[in-house]
Amino acid sequence: MIGNINHIAIVVPDLAEAAARYKNTMGADVSEAVDLPDHGVTTVFVNLPNSKVELLHPYGDSSPIAGFLAKNPSGGMHHICYEVDDILAARDKLVEDGARILGDGDPKIGAHGKPVLFLHPKDFFGTLVEIEQV
Amino acid sequence: MIGNINHIAIVVPDLAEAAARYKNTMGADVSEAVDLPDHGVTTVFVNLPNSKVELLHPYGDSSPIAGFLAKNPSGGMHHICYEVDDILAARDKLVEDGARILGDGDPKIGAHGKPVLFLHPKDFFGTLVEIEQV
Repeated sequence: MIGNINHIAIVVPDLAEAAARYKNTMGADVSEAVDLPDHGVTTVFVNLPNSKVELLHPYGDSSPIAGFLAKNPSGGMHHICYEVDDILAARDKLVEDGARILGDGDPKIGAHGKPVLFLHPKDFFGTLVEIEQV
Repeated sequence: MIGNINHIAIVVPDLAEAAARYKNTMGADVSEAVDLPDHGVTTVFVNLPNSKVELLHPYGDSSPIAGFLAKNPSGGMHHICYEVDDILAARDKLVEDGARILGDGDPKIGAHGKPVLFLHPKDFFGTLVEIEQV
C-alpha cells in the first residue's frame, strides 16, 4: 500500500535560522519560505535527491502545530508522510485493521494540493503518520 | 553536502507489533528483526522504494535508546539519517559552522557497517541527526 516517503516534517522555532542551517551548513537545496494559511503553517522545503524534509513553523492564530511547538520549544520531528496510490482504498484498509483516522475520516486537500489523511499516533507507535495520494 | 535521506529511525515499544502493522496494514516490505548488540538495538527495516524506516527497540542493558523509550513509552521518531560522500569533510564543515558532534567527534562504524556521526539535536532544532558516509 505505501510507496515512497514523501517527506519528513520538522517543526522549528525559527524558520530562517533552520533554513540557513540546512542551506549553508548542510549544503542542501532549500526553498523560500511559503505561507500556507489554509494549513496554518509556513514551510521551507529541503529538497534532497530521494525525498524531502519540510521545515514547519506556525502561521496564524490557530496553527495545528502551535501546540507541538509549545510542548517542544526547541522543535522536533512532527510527522512522516507516505505516498499511496489510492487514498480511499488505503483508508478502508486502515480502518479495517483498527487504525484510527484523525478528523472526520474523509481525505482533505493537503499542503501539496493532493488528498491526505492523518493517522492516530497511538496506532503507529507514537508517530504521527500522514498518507498522501500521488 | 547531504544527499539522500538514508533512513528515519522510529523507536517502538513492541517490535513485532510494529513490524506487523507496517507489513500487514501498510503493505510494506519488512525485514526480519535483526539484533545489533554492538549498537544496543534490535532493528526491523521497512524498505520503501525511495528510502527506509528503521523500527528500533532496545537490545541489552545499556541500550542508547532505553532513555528515549522510558521518556516516550508509546515510542516516537528518534532520528533522521542523511547520506554524505565524505564524513570527515562533513564533520569539519559542521564544526566550522558551530554544530556539535556527539561523542568524541570521530566517526564510528554504524549499524550498516559504514562510518557515521550523530549531531547535537540542539543545533538541529530538536532533531537528532545522523550522517552516514555511503
